Amino acid sequence: MVLDRIQGPNDVHKLDAFEREKLAREIRSFLIEKLSVTGGHLASNLGVVELTIALHSICDLPRDQIVWDVGHQSYTHKILTGRKGDFDRLRAMGGLAGFPKREESDCDIFGTGHSSTSISAGLGLAVARELKGEDYKIFSVIGDGAMTGGMVYEALNNAAEFKKNFVIILNDNNMSISRNVGGLSMNLARMRTSENYKNFKSGMQSSLEKIPVYGNRIVDRMRKTKEGIKQLVIPGMMFEQMGIMYLGPIDGSDIEGMRQIFLEATKIEGPVIVHVLTTKGRGFAPAERHPAKFHGTAPYDMATGLPLKNPATTYTDVFSTVMRKMGGRNDRLLALTAAMETGTGLVRFHNRYPGRFFDVGIAEQHAVTFAAGLASQGLIPVFAVYSSFLQRAFDQILHDVAIQKLHVIFAIDRAGLVGPDGETHQGIFDLSYLSLIPNMVILAPKNKWELSDMLKWAIDTEGPVAIRYPRGAAFDGLREFREPIQRGRAEEIYPLRGRGTKMILLAPIGSMVERALRLRELLLQAGYDVALVNMRFAKPVDEAILADYANRVDLVVPMEENVLAGGFGEHVEICLKEIGYRGKTFLVGFADHFIPHGSVEALMEEEGLTAEKISRKIISLLSSEE
Amino acid sequence: MVLDRIQGPNDVHKLDAFEREKLAREIRSFLIEKLSVTGGHLASNLGVVELTIALHSICDLPRDQIVWDVGHQSYTHKILTGRKGDFDRLRAMGGLAGFPKREESDCDIFGTGHSSTSISAGLGLAVARELKGEDYKIFSVIGDGAMTGGMVYEALNNAAEFKKNFVIILNDNNMSISRNVGGLSMNLARMRTSENYKNFKSGMQSSLEKIPVYGNRIVDRMRKTKEGIKQLVIPGMMFEQMGIMYLGPIDGSDIEGMRQIFLEATKIEGPVIVHVLTTKGRGFAPAERHPAKFHGTAPYDMATGLPLKNPATTYTDVFSTVMRKMGGRNDRLLALTAAMETGTGLVRFHNRYPGRFFDVGIAEQHAVTFAAGLASQGLIPVFAVYSSFLQRAFDQILHDVAIQKLHVIFAIDRAGLVGPDGETHQGIFDLSYLSLIPNMVILAPKNKWELSDMLKWAIDTEGPVAIRYPRGAAFDGLREFREPIQRGRAEEIYPLRGRGTKMILLAPIGSMVERALRLRELLLQAGYDVALVNMRFAKPVDEAILADYANRVDLVVPMEENVLAGGFGEHVEICLKEIGYRGKTFLVGFADHFIPHGSVEALMEEEGLTAEKISRKIISLLSSEE
Repeated sequence: MVLDRIQGPNDVHKLDAFEREKLAREIRSFLIEKLSVTGGHLASNLGVVELTIALHSICDLPRDQIVWDVGHQSYTHKILTGRKGDFDRLRAMGGLAGFPKREESDCDIFGTGHSSTSISAGLGLAVARELKGEDYKIFSVIGDGAMTGGMVYEALNNAAEFKKNFVIILNDNNMSISRNVGGLSMNLARMRTSENYKNFKSGMQSSLEKIPVYGNRIVDRMRKTKEGIKQLVIPGMMFEQMGIMYLGPIDGSDIEGMRQIFLEATKIEGPVIVHVLTTKGRGFAPAERHPAKFHGTAPYDMATGLPLKNPATTYTDVFSTVMRKMGGRNDRLLALTAAMETGTGLVRFHNRYPGRFFDVGIAEQHAVTFAAGLASQGLIPVFAVYSSFLQRAFDQILHDVAIQKLHVIFAIDRAGLVGPDGETHQGIFDLSYLSLIPNMVILAPKNKWELSDMLKWAIDTEGPVAIRYPRGAAFDGLREFREPIQRGRAEEIYPLRGRGTKMILLAPIGSMVERALRLRELLLQAGYDVALVNMRFAKPVDEAILADYANRVDLVVPMEENVLAGGFGEHVEICLKEIGYRGKTFLVGFADHFIPHGSVEALMEEEGLTAEKISRKIISLLSSEE
Repeated sequence: MVLDRIQGPNDVHKLDAFEREKLAREIRSFLIEKLSVTGGHLASNLGVVELTIALHSICDLPRDQIVWDVGHQSYTHKILTGRKGDFDRLRAMGGLAGFPKREESDCDIFGTGHSSTSISAGLGLAVARELKGEDYKIFSVIGDGAMTGGMVYEALNNAAEFKKNFVIILNDNNMSISRNVGGLSMNLARMRTSENYKNFKSGMQSSLEKIPVYGNRIVDRMRKTKEGIKQLVIPGMMFEQMGIMYLGPIDGSDIEGMRQIFLEATKIEGPVIVHVLTTKGRGFAPAERHPAKFHGTAPYDMATGLPLKNPATTYTDVFSTVMRKMGGRNDRLLALTAAMETGTGLVRFHNRYPGRFFDVGIAEQHAVTFAAGLASQGLIPVFAVYSSFLQRAFDQILHDVAIQKLHVIFAIDRAGLVGPDGETHQGIFDLSYLSLIPNMVILAPKNKWELSDMLKWAIDTEGPVAIRYPRGAAFDGLREFREPIQRGRAEEIYPLRGRGTKMILLAPIGSMVERALRLRELLLQAGYDVALVNMRFAKPVDEAILADYANRVDLVVPMEENVLAGGFGEHVEICLKEIGYRGKTFLVGFADHFIPHGSVEALMEEEGLTAEKISRKIISLLSSEE
């Protein structure tokens, strides 16, 4: 095995062309096998095995610097930098992260997770190199999907003024996480299918190999001669117009071709985009056929690609069903996604009402202001988005939607812990960053029926509304509790029983209602009297029900799957104080820190948010004061 | 006066070409005169007088829809839609807003304030029109500066898929608020100076006038013939490559030429960019010479353009001085701005250390991630930015800076009420949206010396640091209080005196310290004993000093120039509760709503935040409970 000889950074330098090819095949098998057990981002990683080997074979790591946009394609990079042995614990708590992490390796020069940051960060690295008077290579590797994110253009606009080398590798697999959209994608398609590329494939490649690679020879040829590779510049006119040199497109399965072009690209003064064509899911038939499904995958059968467990019904599924149904009842209802049609469950709405479905690309900012424009005309846009990605549209929510009180519905999926994707993807801030915005209304459902009820209520109400719900299986208990949704009104689940040593009000929101059921059991067993109220609205908080309990209980326990700072519990606390409540409170939520990757339950345990841990703390709190 | 005949929307239709020219001159004089008294956005508005008249003369308002990007160029639009009489109270409380407002006029179809939103919103309007099966004109008017904002590209990418008419007018004055930067700007410069434009100026215009304007005749000619205007398409290759048709550049002083092209543009199927060349400050010599100074201006002398009052030393001035000084002491110190070199006071740093100054364009997202890249290499970037604009980089602060604990300094100007710019510009959310982010450290200075001390401390510390300070004159009292800055430590100004009916702790932060001085006087007069602590850090809050006072006082009054929701006061409140404080608290800050335009003092009065109003509430609170 060639792979056995790869123990640390730069070991790939010892390989010859034949061995590099063999290494690519071995890494591909390694990834398919390992991920079948752990799950992970399969398709994106299979697409860049050759690209990564080519890049590493011309780099001196960690001296040279590579920024991986999004970072969900960095597995080969991790394998080649001494982390091969850690793949059995990929994305497990304390194990290998699924994204580049500065604390994990000095070869991970800049951490990523969200889309479209790599050119900004890479330009920062490049300017720092110049200011320090040093000389090493800097690459940002970015997918064509990430190119639909606006900050890329902010970065390219700025990079055009930079006079030194900075190489942007455009990893073009003609996909975001799902199908790619928009004008850029059409433009890239034209580049891909141009005659130039065909010429390049057939003829130029072999001639390239004959050219001695030193100085700017190949580049000079590209720029100065009429025939051959020079024409490759033409398809990249858009980038050239922005002041960024363009090379490509080149074949992302051809390690030797990429090595030469990458090396030449590092000799250009100024920023340069190298356009590489790759295939998402390459080498694993099920992933090549359904790359969106294998973007982030659960453990699967290696022969068929089928998931090992049949997934339970998720909140996404419920949302998907209700949206399709409501689309038929209200023709003003629209569905928007930022390149997450599959992940957010909008596929069915899209199929049924294609004229009312909009995938805007990885472009959350535009999505929100576009929605505001639609809402200003009396339409009802529902923007389905992951909690951590909606962070990027914070200003647009505040400035374009909330100030104007427009009726935009935010269906916020993956709100709460997402688990293995870690820090960058945990949806644990939305209750805070939305609560501080005037005019926002924020709900979270306790179970699958309540998500349906809340969505219907949101469609019929006015102004901005956010509904946040977690990743994974939808809770299907408490079906009998289905009080109609009313603005700012909580739902009483279990009242006080009138017997017990102390009176406790559990006031959970969203996913914490399920957890509160178990907590209530434990506290009842400890001899307390425990009421449970499903708070439903993080904003406005139901003051009336809190006031009602304020005179009767010794302890109020607001519970949220969100950071405490600025979140639901702090607002309950403020509210209780205004009411004049003099009893105790115990806020359940996440402390003021980022939460790394791991399974949701392991992380909840670590954070002290299991029913058992909460109950022990409450019991200790109530007994200590006596 | 032609202007006298303009009483409401569409009155401009009654004018002939000669009268339209005269109207432009009259509006220009009107604006120069009115703004000399009220202040306002002069230069941007003078630049688009002709453009706006041309646009209105082909529109049927409010049926047709115009979105003004940023909106600081909408004064002529307001004059032409019946609001001429309101200019004496421009930007005053209850008076005419300086930006488009849906509640002010049905001709203001979409409110703006922040940059780069108009194409997203306009596309929303356009899609809504198609879904409703209607037929009217839709224009987004956007400056070349706003084109450096990333969400524009997200919107263009999405617009390229739209099949119906949607006209984007690119108002190119070769300026952001100050000098324009980046690759796009170079590209636009090439378009401006192209032979095509010269040809157009000399020959094509007259020939255009001879062409009967119906159907797509001119457009057909543009696209199909070799000579003449067809060449105009070539400079816009970048937009064409994105799938957006481009027309221009055309002369923004020529009303008749613009009318014809705008009208033709509305006949194109699909989105089209019309590139118009304008002159910022046109017709007022001081503003043409110094457009950045006359971007937003205070009242001025009409003859000279000089300000009527000599402005006091501002926090911006202090920041400017300290940055220049510290730049000489630490060559790792860098200064970044998003097109606000003048406004943020970085001009002097730029002049002195040009290699360490970076204007990235109106691109807050990129600025922050670029800064993160620089900081990852041991440099110390200071991003000077207005509070409300930093909202746009919320995700980048969290994801790129805070998760990685990078040493990026945010110098947040215009934090607190900004006054006349209103809702979109009030910097009243930063304490909340930054406090919820783990690893952030947030300070606010009480006076000008403390801003200097805090900036120096921030440069010498580690990790992300934000310093927020308000618009306007820097407080120069309390000079004798200059305790060295220590992480998370407050500064005691006046301790309790040991006599008084009740004990009160005033715990203001930043600009509220000055206000607390007066409040303290009033409360002392009322017979209370009042301590005053300058809290300095919004995060981490100084728990020790709160604990020290908790046993001694009856009331704690945290004070902030920020919304209460998720802000400083709520965190003090939570902290006091954890300490076990059983006394009262009274939180001073803004209620949960947006705050419109007006003078800062009038707004403070309205919000109940004058020392007098606060003292009355406190006295009532303390006496009611006895």
